Amino acid sequence: MKLSEIAEILGCRLIGDGSVEIKGIGEIESAQPGEITFLTNPRYRKFLKKTKASAVIIDKPAEELTLPQIICKEPYVAFAKLLSILYPEKLPPPSISERAVIEEGASVGDRCYIGANVYIGKGTKIGNGAVVFPGVFIGNECEIGDNSVIFPNVTIYDRSKIGKFVRIHAGAVIGSDGFGYAFSKEEMKIYKVPQVGRVVIEDFVEIGANTTIDRGTIGETVIGEGSKIDNLVQVGHNVKIGKYCFIVSQVGISGSTRIGNYVTLAGKVGVAGHIEITDNVTVAAKSGITKSIKEPGTYAGFPARPYKEWKKIQALIDRLPELYQKVREILKKHGR
Amino acid sequence: MKLSEIAEILGCRLIGDGSVEIKGIGEIESAQPGEITFLTNPRYRKFLKKTKASAVIIDKPAEELTLPQIICKEPYVAFAKLLSILYPEKLPPPSISERAVIEEGASVGDRCYIGANVYIGKGTKIGNGAVVFPGVFIGNECEIGDNSVIFPNVTIYDRSKIGKFVRIHAGAVIGSDGFGYAFSKEEMKIYKVPQVGRVVIEDFVEIGANTTIDRGTIGETVIGEGSKIDNLVQVGHNVKIGKYCFIVSQVGISGSTRIGNYVTLAGKVGVAGHIEITDNVTVAAKSGITKSIKEPGTYAGFPARPYKEWKKIQALIDRLPELYQKVREILKKHGR
Amino acid sequence: MKLSEIAEILGCRLIGDGSVEIKGIGEIESAQPGEITFLTNPRYRKFLKKTKASAVIIDKPAEELTLPQIICKEPYVAFAKLLSILYPEKLPPPSISERAVIEEGASVGDRCYIGANVYIGKGTKIGNGAVVFPGVFIGNECEIGDNSVIFPNVTIYDRSKIGKFVRIHAGAVIGSDGFGYAFSKEEMKIYKVPQVGRVVIEDFVEIGANTTIDRGTIGETVIGEGSKIDNLVQVGHNVKIGKYCFIVSQVGISGSTRIGNYVTLAGKVGVAGHIEITDNVTVAAKSGITKSIKEPGTYAGFPARPYKEWKKIQALIDRLPELYQKVREILKKHGR
Repeated sequence: MKLSEIAEILGCRLIGDGSVEIKGIGEIESAQPGEITFLTNPRYRKFLKKTKASAVIIDKPAEELTLPQIICKEPYVAFAKLLSILYPEKLPPPSISERAVIEEGASVGDRCYIGANVYIGKGTKIGNGAVVFPGVFIGNECEIGDNSVIFPNVTIYDRSKIGKFVRIHAGAVIGSDGFGYAFSKEEMKIYKVPQVGRVVIEDFVEIGANTTIDRGTIGETVIGEGSKIDNLVQVGHNVKIGKYCFIVSQVGISGSTRIGNYVTLAGKVGVAGHIEITDNVTVAAKSGITKSIKEPGTYAGFPARPYKEWKKIQALIDRLPELYQKVREILKKHGR
Repeated sequence: MKLSEIAEILGCRLIGDGSVEIKGIGEIESAQPGEITFLTNPRYRKFLKKTKASAVIIDKPAEELTLPQIICKEPYVAFAKLLSILYPEKLPPPSISERAVIEEGASVGDRCYIGANVYIGKGTKIGNGAVVFPGVFIGNECEIGDNSVIFPNVTIYDRSKIGKFVRIHAGAVIGSDGFGYAFSKEEMKIYKVPQVGRVVIEDFVEIGANTTIDRGTIGETVIGEGSKIDNLVQVGHNVKIGKYCFIVSQVGISGSTRIGNYVTLAGKVGVAGHIEITDNVTVAAKSGITKSIKEPGTYAGFPARPYKEWKKIQALIDRLPELYQKVREILKKHGR
Repeated sequence: MKLSEIAEILGCRLIGDGSVEIKGIGEIESAQPGEITFLTNPRYRKFLKKTKASAVIIDKPAEELTLPQIICKEPYVAFAKLLSILYPEKLPPPSISERAVIEEGASVGDRCYIGANVYIGKGTKIGNGAVVFPGVFIGNECEIGDNSVIFPNVTIYDRSKIGKFVRIHAGAVIGSDGFGYAFSKEEMKIYKVPQVGRVVIEDFVEIGANTTIDRGTIGETVIGEGSKIDNLVQVGHNVKIGKYCFIVSQVGISGSTRIGNYVTLAGKVGVAGHIEITDNVTVAAKSGITKSIKEPGTYAGFPARPYKEWKKIQALIDRLPELYQKVREILKKHGR
């Protein structure tokens, strides 16, 4: 593809020779001639002069450069678009393996790929264009929406409802029992609380590898439209996650918590049960959220507090040696 | 089922019309007419007046209510019992799939369900009434006790011993190699320490989705009777967990640590290796246990300490800005 | 095996009766007559006098003992070597299951075990002597090196390259999509960043159960030669881990971070994205690394800092109640 064509598709201004042939995309440090690269993170600016790439996508013209530049206000978005054009995903073509088990009353839509060793339970409906990789287990009375992709060795328990254009990565478990036990002091006995609800995953959700989402005790665990969940995340029973949230790797969300729309939980965040997080909240990595968050904004720490407060307290903790020193001096003056 | 029947089964007092027909159980905010609901967590008391449910299970009579009430000292226990009556678990009926591989010398008890694509290794014994879902791998010379349920895509390594009425959720791994390497400074070489022990899981244990339990290096990793382990928990080699423990999601327990009976480790707790935690210990979420805990009680923090101490220190950390302010004032008085 | 033979194989000095017959290895607390035990961790020294073992491997002669001793400078290394002699790993003998699916253009080397319900994609090459357990999915155009062992229910995405003598434990996921999305403020829309790179795992690497390693967005995610990764670890896209690293359970490493050689990250450590950690760094459990680490050494805390600094600040935090008390006294003296 010619550079001028790329600029046109992206709707971006081109500086330099548009006739350059582009064969692929490379990282700024390792791109080869014939590849286009991009600059989004200022940390990598130092590589800009040395890159062997034949062109660069960048937000503002870099005058020091001789190589052609495509100027995009949002270079990372342009990069994402270009990747999807140059490297369209190769999913297996439609076919239903003879080694798949499809129980009675289950239905599979048009143009589906159902791989070897897949199990589809009774009464389950698989939408058109769905891709179900080998080793996937889908229980009874589930729904998988059109064009969703279920990667290998995923387990989906009974009655789960998965929307359209959902992607669930390998090893994820959808609909496992919530962690519910009732301890009777009267009888000194533990009763398991049966988990009889289900999981609902709305359209355009992506779920990471080996993530676990428990079904509702009664009622539903819900992952809202367009939300993205990373690998090894735990979502407890009856949690409701709103729309367009980002839940980063190793986050844990305890049961019955409600998370609004446009919420980002960074890596390893823990969230207590039975609380609410409002819309437009971002929580820094490794934080622990113990109470409801009612105001939009950025939070950090354990217990989580507004980011600025946390920054201040962190700085003071760093200065503790100095504080102790001062107090010692004062005490000395007092003759102690 | 009539409300009066439910009250009778639960052995609880009924206030109001016992002839009401109950078709299901609903959450207090979303229950529909014909459903019974329950109140256990005071946070939800605000929904009590507005609920559309036809009856409520509650610990003390709520005089403001007109809807019928079942008065149970332990409403959550009553809820658990009622759920198991109204929604008995639907496990697949006994059958052995032609697509299961059962190696020579393996035996399967009566009334078992062995799903498609299950692999059962040489010399392994599956007890009566066991349920083994599709995609499960069970290695050689294992034992699975009567009435245990192994959910899809679980892996059980060789020589594991699983008791009766055990439930192991999807994707869990039992008996993987412990993380053991011996570094020789003499030879500047890493030697893998062969992991030749096994895992023993006693009766009535439940293990969450994608949890991993390493086998002993030599000797055993043991999960004691009735203990419950949530999703994505790591249990290291040679760990011994006692009876009736609750290990919440994303906890990690390092090798050779011994945990007593009736211990609760809340979400994301980390436990160092080669230590001991006595009986009746509860540890708050996100804590890190670095030393043995010899006294029963509640602990928190990193390093973990008695809960009250931790609370105090947390409060003082919150007040650090104020403390700095005071010290600054004192210094000013001293003319600095 | 006679004790004298063991001493000879290990190249260690024997004290006591070399004619004792050794049938196995036992832990110091639970070893039985006929077994040899070992002492590496001083915590267990108290068991030395009481052990029923018939011999002990120890670093220095223990004069109080009557049982025979093998004196090795590095007893844990000796223990590892002895285990591998006495308990050689029993892998399944070569054979290719009729229930494995091997797509066209895939090749399987000599002396391989390919278990039931394995899926091997188009163009994938499996080296000589490789062991692929039941339920494993290997995508298209992958390479698995000679003598590598892939345990059950592992998923390996397309184009992954796995070296020789690699071990990947059950449920691990290699090559899942990185967590990459580009949010366009202009269009108020989330674009998925296609993940078109791959994972490269070099020779002698071991990867734990249910660990997830995302493939590069473009370019590669690399696990360097001889590095060992424990269970439930997350490795983000484009991460490069050097040679002979130890990454302990539940660690999370964010995208594009570079880790040097001989780095140890203890349990639950979190590492930010786009940073660098130099060679010979050790980071204590539960730490959070937010910035590049340029000097070898030991680090701890969140944010991570040199271990000694962290120790000091931890100690001062413990003494906060005392500090407040002192400041209160001073203020009293000042009449407030």
